[in-house]
Amino acid sequence: MITSAGNARVKQVVQWQNKAKERKKDGIFLAEGIKMFEEAPTESIVEVFVSEDLEQKLKSTEVSDTDALYKKKLHETGYEIVADDVFAKMSDTQTPQGILTILKRPEYNLDLLLQEENPVFVILENLQDPGNLGTIVRTAEGAGITGVIMSAGTVDIFNPKTIRATMGSIYRVPFLYVEDMADTIQKLHKHGVHTYAAHLAGKTYYQDVSLKEPTAFLIGNEGNGLTKETADMAESYIKIPMEGQVESLNAAVATALLLYEAHRQRHGEIQSK
Amino acid sequence: MITSAGNARVKQVVQWQNKAKERKKDGIFLAEGIKMFEEAPTESIVEVFVSEDLEQKLKSTEVSDTDALYKKKLHETGYEIVADDVFAKMSDTQTPQGILTILKRPEYNLDLLLQEENPVFVILENLQDPGNLGTIVRTAEGAGITGVIMSAGTVDIFNPKTIRATMGSIYRVPFLYVEDMADTIQKLHKHGVHTYAAHLAGKTYYQDVSLKEPTAFLIGNEGNGLTKETADMAESYIKIPMEGQVESLNAAVATALLLYEAHRQRHGEIQSK
Repeated sequence: MITSAGNARVKQVVQWQNKAKERKKDGIFLAEGIKMFEEAPTESIVEVFVSEDLEQKLKSTEVSDTDALYKKKLHETGYEIVADDVFAKMSDTQTPQGILTILKRPEYNLDLLLQEENPVFVILENLQDPGNLGTIVRTAEGAGITGVIMSAGTVDIFNPKTIRATMGSIYRVPFLYVEDMADTIQKLHKHGVHTYAAHLAGKTYYQDVSLKEPTAFLIGNEGNGLTKETADMAESYIKIPMEGQVESLNAAVATALLLYEAHRQRHGEIQSK
Repeated sequence: MITSAGNARVKQVVQWQNKAKERKKDGIFLAEGIKMFEEAPTESIVEVFVSEDLEQKLKSTEVSDTDALYKKKLHETGYEIVADDVFAKMSDTQTPQGILTILKRPEYNLDLLLQEENPVFVILENLQDPGNLGTIVRTAEGAGITGVIMSAGTVDIFNPKTIRATMGSIYRVPFLYVEDMADTIQKLHKHGVHTYAAHLAGKTYYQDVSLKEPTAFLIGNEGNGLTKETADMAESYIKIPMEGQVESLNAAVATALLLYEAHRQRHGEIQSK
């Protein structure tokens, strides 16, 4: 059991929690909580830390084998026990669930994603709010999107707040950062992907365009929207109708409306059960 | 100019920032930032605090009369200047814009809202995330909703984080807290409002119900959804299609999809300009 906050591995975890650069250098990311451990791809798990408190519960009858997928999974992955006060230091949350997973980063390739049949992408330019990004990844899975493409200036997708907000979708939605937005958009065009910029200057409502062909939505920064350079490259501007004095919607909300419109159009007349 | 953090009004503001109970007792709420001041209904403004730094900018040519609506408005409302270090203590944000508005709370009446033609309501039960609530209020204005009804257990709509996330919609979207959800839903039914519970057990997709009649959507807590008692009172359960392993969407995202579906159905074939 690790009992000292001075332990080298504890120090390493704290660095990873706080510094995007450290996480990147080591090619890892951190996921906290039971659900995030349960859904983690086993082959990507590097290490698991469990608090003393949770370890006690696992030993007692409080956590039954049948109820707890994670109990079974912990037997497979193995784990390191950490004293509660030390675990609190390693955790990014105020009330930690007592399980912290270190994972290898997945790597996705745009060329491979482009080979999927009739893809839908969301391209984020310089989004800054970690919660918004996580919510978008979660919604992207829900809407059945091919992948999330982000400009280099977008907030780190491995930010602990983002990871939490994905509710596990981080494990399943392909994503990548691109250095050159113009290059990327050109590549999409070459592959027959239609690009739509969510833009206040749009004249066409998002429900009036056909999204049944390969599609990519371009979403800009929360405060400033898309840069002119990027918006100019899009095939069309689209807008979301807004009543009252509303000038724009929250970035995750706007993205959700677009992604689910694509879903609606592509699934034709939805069959309720 | 107020120069001491010991000043009684400063202490009062700090209490209001931190304590929902204090804000409620005095029937006020606080809004920070330039945009929130600009959009504030003048008749509701009780007091305005401006930081020394912003006051300097207002006096200089840095803020021109033509550019700044708030400069003109400050002349009308009057304001109190506060030393920068004291203002920082009064502010809820890390990088305050230097303007803090104290406002009287608006009061809305459900009976009056029910008299509006063909209303759409969103009813929130025990939502806990202040950002989600603010985003919902913002989206409600965008989708042209009649009002937001909240259970007594919902997070305080006057929480500084919520106010910020509304981006000014707090001034324009009618809202109210209700003590008794069952009573409220019965009242809606009596007035011919159809109630739809967003529920995992729903069998009908939200796009398969007609939302052209008076409508209310019931949205539950982020983690637990609607209570059984409340869900049971709804006329129908509806669900949002979800691909992959997604079990639920973010509460603000789910609400946005429902509200904009009502908007889409009610505005018929949308005319793009």
